[in-house]
Amino acid sequence: MPAIPAPAVPDRSHEILASIRQSFAEKGFDGASMQDLARAAGMSVGNFYRYFPSKMAIVQAMCGYDLAEIQGEFAEIQKSDTPMACLRARILAHFDEEQMKDGQLWAEITAAAIRKPEIGEAAREMEETIVRLLATIFARVTGRDPEAARQRYEGQAQMLVMLVKAMAMRTAQFGPASPALERQVHAVIDGLLADISTDTAEG
Amino acid sequence: MPAIPAPAVPDRSHEILASIRQSFAEKGFDGASMQDLARAAGMSVGNFYRYFPSKMAIVQAMCGYDLAEIQGEFAEIQKSDTPMACLRARILAHFDEEQMKDGQLWAEITAAAIRKPEIGEAAREMEETIVRLLATIFARVTGRDPEAARQRYEGQAQMLVMLVKAMAMRTAQFGPASPALERQVHAVIDGLLADISTDTAEG
Repeated sequence: MPAIPAPAVPDRSHEILASIRQSFAEKGFDGASMQDLARAAGMSVGNFYRYFPSKMAIVQAMCGYDLAEIQGEFAEIQKSDTPMACLRARILAHFDEEQMKDGQLWAEITAAAIRKPEIGEAAREMEETIVRLLATIFARVTGRDPEAARQRYEGQAQMLVMLVKAMAMRTAQFGPASPALERQVHAVIDGLLADISTDTAEG
Repeated sequence: MPAIPAPAVPDRSHEILASIRQSFAEKGFDGASMQDLARAAGMSVGNFYRYFPSKMAIVQAMCGYDLAEIQGEFAEIQKSDTPMACLRARILAHFDEEQMKDGQLWAEITAAAIRKPEIGEAAREMEETIVRLLATIFARVTGRDPEAARQRYEGQAQMLVMLVKAMAMRTAQFGPASPALERQVHAVIDGLLADISTDTAEG
């Protein structure tokens, strides 16, 4: 319950992003015009430009909001008495069909990030932040300091991010994963987390 | 050395595809116009349309040529005395930087496949064919018939395809993987292949 008063002119950017997300994902980064997006947000083009002067600004804002949400999730994991179990549950929850709707957006952002350096930068920052947040959990579980954990578990953290993203894109493309693929993905995640859990600094 | 005579009008489509591949990947599925692509191929737009009447036709032809190449690779793996070692070497060779240039094209095709059902269909067929080819190798190694192997190792085959694709897109986006991530990916692949190698039908 934050004590910060609501701003006089409420920041509608979150609401606007939510309303254009689907159309951005469906038409693609190049396919969706600013006109299309303003229409999806129920705004005039002029007013829409006041919030988002470019598609780049939209992608950056989307990454920013997603990251804020992810940081909230990690804060809860850190507070948990069983952080590894809690992390595992959160990762697997990302594989729910409902969550997988972001796979289309990720595919668009990935393709655009490769073509456009500024978008690539926003996507890279997002990935690096998630890797660092994962390392903070691993630091706590293994009794290491965060920087040591970041170096030691870089590969595992990058693998987890890559798997979650790959599954989201795959689900958007082909529909829900087969139970057999799901078992393989779970086995890899469980193996990674178990290896880290037993890799404590005190041996 | 095939004895088949060259056709009177040689099929230039392979050559054209090679010359437009880069510009297709760089400008994106929606961003690259048929004019851009004709120019990249050094052809008039009219002549270009005779080979490829639509972007869809281009993607289908690219998938077709890639698949033919992959089928050639699998035929060699099948002939090998050590098919699993040979398969492993081929998968790891896909992670070479040079091979990773296709990551950009894959990101474009993935994003377009989610938006456009016809492209989705070409991409799905490609994935299913690769899964089936992998199962044929696993069938031979474990002494199972191909259909039994396809069912039994569906998850492992899908996981391998997903990992190779995810690594290609990741490399296109962020550059070469860290050695730490590479170790994790190799460990997953080695684990999968080792499990299958020891899972022989005769026990």
